[in-house]
Amino acid sequence: MAIITLTSDIGRQDYLPGAIKGRLLRINPAFQLVDITHELPPFNYPQAAYVCRNAIRNFPEGSYHIVLVNLFDAPPRHILLALHHQQYIACADNGLLTMILEEKPEEVVAIPVPQGIPPHTLHLTDVIGNAIAQLNSGAALEDIGDPRVNIVEKLPIRPVSGNNFLEGQIIFIDHFENVVVNITRPQFEAARQGRSFKIVFKRDEVIDRISHTYADVPESEKLALFNASDYLEIAINKGNAAGLFGLQGFSEQAGNTAYLQNRLFYQTVRIYFE
Amino acid sequence: MAIITLTSDIGRQDYLPGAIKGRLLRINPAFQLVDITHELPPFNYPQAAYVCRNAIRNFPEGSYHIVLVNLFDAPPRHILLALHHQQYIACADNGLLTMILEEKPEEVVAIPVPQGIPPHTLHLTDVIGNAIAQLNSGAALEDIGDPRVNIVEKLPIRPVSGNNFLEGQIIFIDHFENVVVNITRPQFEAARQGRSFKIVFKRDEVIDRISHTYADVPESEKLALFNASDYLEIAINKGNAAGLFGLQGFSEQAGNTAYLQNRLFYQTVRIYFE
Amino acid sequence: MAIITLTSDIGRQDYLPGAIKGRLLRINPAFQLVDITHELPPFNYPQAAYVCRNAIRNFPEGSYHIVLVNLFDAPPRHILLALHHQQYIACADNGLLTMILEEKPEEVVAIPVPQGIPPHTLHLTDVIGNAIAQLNSGAALEDIGDPRVNIVEKLPIRPVSGNNFLEGQIIFIDHFENVVVNITRPQFEAARQGRSFKIVFKRDEVIDRISHTYADVPESEKLALFNASDYLEIAINKGNAAGLFGLQGFSEQAGNTAYLQNRLFYQTVRIYFE
Repeated sequence: MAIITLTSDIGRQDYLPGAIKGRLLRINPAFQLVDITHELPPFNYPQAAYVCRNAIRNFPEGSYHIVLVNLFDAPPRHILLALHHQQYIACADNGLLTMILEEKPEEVVAIPVPQGIPPHTLHLTDVIGNAIAQLNSGAALEDIGDPRVNIVEKLPIRPVSGNNFLEGQIIFIDHFENVVVNITRPQFEAARQGRSFKIVFKRDEVIDRISHTYADVPESEKLALFNASDYLEIAINKGNAAGLFGLQGFSEQAGNTAYLQNRLFYQTVRIYFE
Repeated sequence: MAIITLTSDIGRQDYLPGAIKGRLLRINPAFQLVDITHELPPFNYPQAAYVCRNAIRNFPEGSYHIVLVNLFDAPPRHILLALHHQQYIACADNGLLTMILEEKPEEVVAIPVPQGIPPHTLHLTDVIGNAIAQLNSGAALEDIGDPRVNIVEKLPIRPVSGNNFLEGQIIFIDHFENVVVNITRPQFEAARQGRSFKIVFKRDEVIDRISHTYADVPESEKLALFNASDYLEIAINKGNAAGLFGLQGFSEQAGNTAYLQNRLFYQTVRIYFE
Repeated sequence: MAIITLTSDIGRQDYLPGAIKGRLLRINPAFQLVDITHELPPFNYPQAAYVCRNAIRNFPEGSYHIVLVNLFDAPPRHILLALHHQQYIACADNGLLTMILEEKPEEVVAIPVPQGIPPHTLHLTDVIGNAIAQLNSGAALEDIGDPRVNIVEKLPIRPVSGNNFLEGQIIFIDHFENVVVNITRPQFEAARQGRSFKIVFKRDEVIDRISHTYADVPESEKLALFNASDYLEIAINKGNAAGLFGLQGFSEQAGNTAYLQNRLFYQTVRIYFE
């Protein structure tokens, strides 16, 4: 039966994640619902994109992924439904889709949202759930939505590069306070071109090798590795890197104020090649 | 197969939500278990009622809803099992049921709890799970419990109204710090009778219109709307209303101390009609 | 179909719990996945063991339990897969297994982890998922792993006992701030031998009876009872014992620093018999 994942920034104390599941099971009680998370931080597209991208690509082909993030950025006239690398993704037309995929979707259609009623999360859930039911019954994307849609595109935050450096942003801090940077192993190797390197953060902390696993260094020592999704991670073996080094996740909102911009230094990590 | 939702104040770090699922799957491995939340704040009936009420009513008819909140308010002699608007609800006989339903249940029976053993959550889970298994096999409520039970009734917290005003309590603050007030759209329209209005909170903050969606106002501006469950919500477009305005959720325990009562002013929202 | 539970210290904001579910559903979309918790505190074996032990034993016989805790304590060469009391448990060979079971597993084999690729959580998930698929198709443990493995054993933290006392450690503080101590009812009765007793904590707080349920004492009064898993619990009826008495959970890391060791007094509870 259809596997449907749910990702949102609604939080776990709200009735809405439960109500959303109820609405989907009303459409088809055999839908197989899987929570990714409902605790994305509000309005943090980079983190939402990181979490969705790396969860989605591990599911069986033909799974459906409902991403409920910043639904009301603008009054919603339609919902996007995309097919990309054999995964279906439903989300608002707010730019997040291209940030998740890091490219344009292979196929995408606009599913109209009924107007004249308040555009609530549960109405949008019904629109998405009914579209999934149709796809699951054999309909094609073009049968249920408009492929001529001109979708809002936001670029994923990419590392900044120069001749001898690569600068990444912190996009996630995990439960262990390991710090995830938006530099993937292929990006690193492409910029490095076989040179030796220094990973520098918080002004003067330096790491000059890539570990395979946390236990490659003694307890309480810092290390860098590429994580299960091939992103650069700064960690301390059995310690808390973010807290210790005062590192913070990149936040879109941070750019809004001069105060926070002054702290942005510690939201980036630089790799120097030599 | 039977859809069973779980709602509790047990918290997500505990073994009990897992153990409860295990016990239910022992009774029938085909039970389809759906978490609503296990993070209701302890002893906060108004929020528990709000969350349960608005999750439950979105499920397919004939779903079962297990509500494990304040099970040990008194030593439990029986568990209530109600049928209301085609939803089955199991909960302790502690007054919460009428707060969830906002009225008496259409049908309710008392399922006896075996005495002489300590009345633990997992024993109560077995009692409820076995009752659901019987209902699911075609038994009627009267076959498995005593319909003559005189249930404990607590009244839902209702808005206070006068000729020219309606005063509501804050019953939930969501992940975005939007503030939910126990005034529904029908209650608002009935009191308003076509008059113009001012929503006043925190002494002197005023909103005089109802928005359809957050994006109806510029970013960082305050607004009021009716949410997906038709409750009044005070929000800031892409901001955090609760934090900014110093608003707090209503807590039953708050009434216990003079100190907290002094802060109750900010736990209510008033609408003046003119 | 196979019931598979998931327990980890990954946290709820990460993409990994979702990605793990995706990988398992790729192996078999009919796997029935049940979250226990993903919010075990990092590196806290006593709490992880308490949560796993008491969740696992409530599941139907033949269930599979994947425990992803401190996977990278050492570079993983194999994963342990045990069968104990008719429950299958997969976890890293880091000592946690014997802490969960409180004894050696009845049967255990080592499932080899492919070397030469970075040992990530998702690779280990594949190893475990494939092993479960084989067991579920009728294979025996010996068919899929090496039974000659010499597993790492860590002893569960046990109460300290003398002629006239029993001293336990706080292993869990629940959502209500009830305090769970690693003294079970059988251990208590064996040490007590019918004598009267005083439970003493935080220097001079004393409880001299065991309650059956919270409501046995007036609101805001302290009590002791044995919880749903038969562990000693210190609580306040409708209050927060941990906060009020300044009690903290036992942490393995706490032993690392003199500062924290000075606070260990309040992480234990003593029972005197007389």
